[in-house]
Amino acid sequence: MTTTLIDGIGLLYTGDPAREEIRDAALVLEDGLVAWLGPAGRAPAADRRIAAGGRCVIPGFVDSHAHLVFAGDRTAEFEARMAGQAYTGGGIRTTVAATRRAGDAELATRAAALVAEMLAQGTTTVEIKSGYGLSVEDERRSLEIATGLTDETTYLGAHLVPDGVTADDYVRLVTGEMLAACAPYAKWVDVFCERGAFDGDQTREILGAGIKAGLLARVHANQLTEGPGVRIACELGAASADHCTHLSAADVDALASSGTVATLLPGAEFSTRSPYPDARRLIDAGVTVALATDCNPGSSFTSSMPFCVALAVREMRMTPLEAIRAATYGGARALRRADVGWLGPGARADLVVLDAPSYTHLAYRPGVPLVHQVFQGGLLLE
Amino acid sequence: MTTTLIDGIGLLYTGDPAREEIRDAALVLEDGLVAWLGPAGRAPAADRRIAAGGRCVIPGFVDSHAHLVFAGDRTAEFEARMAGQAYTGGGIRTTVAATRRAGDAELATRAAALVAEMLAQGTTTVEIKSGYGLSVEDERRSLEIATGLTDETTYLGAHLVPDGVTADDYVRLVTGEMLAACAPYAKWVDVFCERGAFDGDQTREILGAGIKAGLLARVHANQLTEGPGVRIACELGAASADHCTHLSAADVDALASSGTVATLLPGAEFSTRSPYPDARRLIDAGVTVALATDCNPGSSFTSSMPFCVALAVREMRMTPLEAIRAATYGGARALRRADVGWLGPGARADLVVLDAPSYTHLAYRPGVPLVHQVFQGGLLLE
Ligand SMILES: [Zn+2]
Ligand SMILES: [Zn+2]
Repeated sequence: MTTTLIDGIGLLYTGDPAREEIRDAALVLEDGLVAWLGPAGRAPAADRRIAAGGRCVIPGFVDSHAHLVFAGDRTAEFEARMAGQAYTGGGIRTTVAATRRAGDAELATRAAALVAEMLAQGTTTVEIKSGYGLSVEDERRSLEIATGLTDETTYLGAHLVPDGVTADDYVRLVTGEMLAACAPYAKWVDVFCERGAFDGDQTREILGAGIKAGLLARVHANQLTEGPGVRIACELGAASADHCTHLSAADVDALASSGTVATLLPGAEFSTRSPYPDARRLIDAGVTVALATDCNPGSSFTSSMPFCVALAVREMRMTPLEAIRAATYGGARALRRADVGWLGPGARADLVVLDAPSYTHLAYRPGVPLVHQVFQGGLLLE
Repeated sequence: MTTTLIDGIGLLYTGDPAREEIRDAALVLEDGLVAWLGPAGRAPAADRRIAAGGRCVIPGFVDSHAHLVFAGDRTAEFEARMAGQAYTGGGIRTTVAATRRAGDAELATRAAALVAEMLAQGTTTVEIKSGYGLSVEDERRSLEIATGLTDETTYLGAHLVPDGVTADDYVRLVTGEMLAACAPYAKWVDVFCERGAFDGDQTREILGAGIKAGLLARVHANQLTEGPGVRIACELGAASADHCTHLSAADVDALASSGTVATLLPGAEFSTRSPYPDARRLIDAGVTVALATDCNPGSSFTSSMPFCVALAVREMRMTPLEAIRAATYGGARALRRADVGWLGPGARADLVVLDAPSYTHLAYRPGVPLVHQVFQGGLLLE
């Protein structure tokens, strides 16, 4: 097998809590994995050598929350919201209608384009949810398309109760026929637990059914109101409670004493002009925090993890170290992945060479495309 | 001469107030200029054809405020500021010391790299200031380096009073020997009119001397406090008053009744966690507004005009149309340039093909690199 040495790394952020940063580092890749890393002077020989020229190297971003299978356009809704106007369009329903109308090829092409856009921005692992189909077949095919793009597929039939169905009937569908059709294509089950979407009892029922069908739980929780989502996530051992914008003291305690990650999605607050989650309160309480894009055409159409890092530092007062940790290691924890989000012997060779001497520049130089090179599974993407 | 037809333009933002937007448009370039634009069906024949594939085309961004000639590093200062810590480092003085120590080649290489980074992000015209030399020779060579990169060079000897000189002596130098050395390399004279930098009388004196030496005036005005900068800029007929964060009613009136552009620099407020200027108040009063990056290693190290557009919409409540206008046409007005910042027969063929169906996506998809192709002087950059 060919080995590749990346040397001349000015700063290596490993994401490994045991030795998080190494200055003047090198890294050896072999067979798609990291074989060795350490101080540049001690690097073993390799077949091929790539010079990082003093740049910073980080693990590929792990974006643990994205809605990429959809059709249609919501530009006008964004414009109206930014102008402070009440928008009388359909919100998520607009996307559902367009997604149902779209052919498989269109949905697959659009989702693949977003995954490629993310990869070019350093995201080497992405989670993809269904949730714009809301019928048995449209949820199923959304997930089938997602499985072609990632291992991290999430069944979000419980995104919203579609028009023309009662909530009770829809919960029965989501926990019954739709779950049976979707489970073969999904690793995760998710519920939008929110006033106007699904309440606490419905959330418990849907997650419970998903877990019974062999799926792992994650929850859209406490985005708009201080609802029961976070507590349910912690009770059921969900991998992640996502959004966490409105939290009670009991919610913070529940997160701190559970293995549930708090996934913060500041792109949504940016694009809806809403107050940001209190990341400091969570971190100071010992909660594991992840950052993700929430990429979706309604509330957060960014695909940029660097942008989320910049917002985390500016708006949520995370340090650059906390932000890069949340965007890599935190995302991997939120997906229960031990093989990505960090760099060390045995980890996947998913990494980003930044056009900057440190990861701090992701916040210090907001909006600037600083991704110089991306390696995924040991392969340099051109 | 070869002519190039760009057709299949989904939306053309021309920046020409007479017909600002054209759907389903085409554009013909010849000899570095726009020769024709209009509805796709009526395009004349051309030697070469480029298909825009339904994308949006805009004029190249005009970034009318940037500090690109410097050396040194201020990452630690940024980190301390974001953590809310008092920073005991030297601020601008740190950069002055490093810039004075650096060789010409280092300064030129770094500035050229930033210009290239900007170009890749769609900025086809950039202004470059001196102001990190603060000695006759260091200001002169900073401007000489800048002239190699742009026609829009600005003498900012009056950035700060350097250590070891009295303010009176320094004003004498800036208006005397330093001005004489710098004027041959500069189009503009600028002053940082602010408490702790230069007061109203000094600002008048320095701008007056620059104007006498054949330079045109622009002013760093009202960034941190409601000082006299904006009124002086309007009185002296400056092309632009930059920052405009703290304005009295009289300041807004002065801008509205003068030809002075208000250049807003939201990257600075983002990176210093400060309140943003009130763009709506200015626009509603009829003031011409420009957007620029203020790219500099201290208070705003972004080089991204798309990022500034996103901030303008999110944080300053500009509409996407107002923001794109400010980032193109507004910037050109702030530089008194009639040949850039818009597209129409006779304008420079500086334009950007966006990977999006509209310029609204610059705000709707924050942080995402949406620049698909850049033409500068009719040449497609690869
Ligand atoms: Zn979501
Ligand atoms: Zn400035």
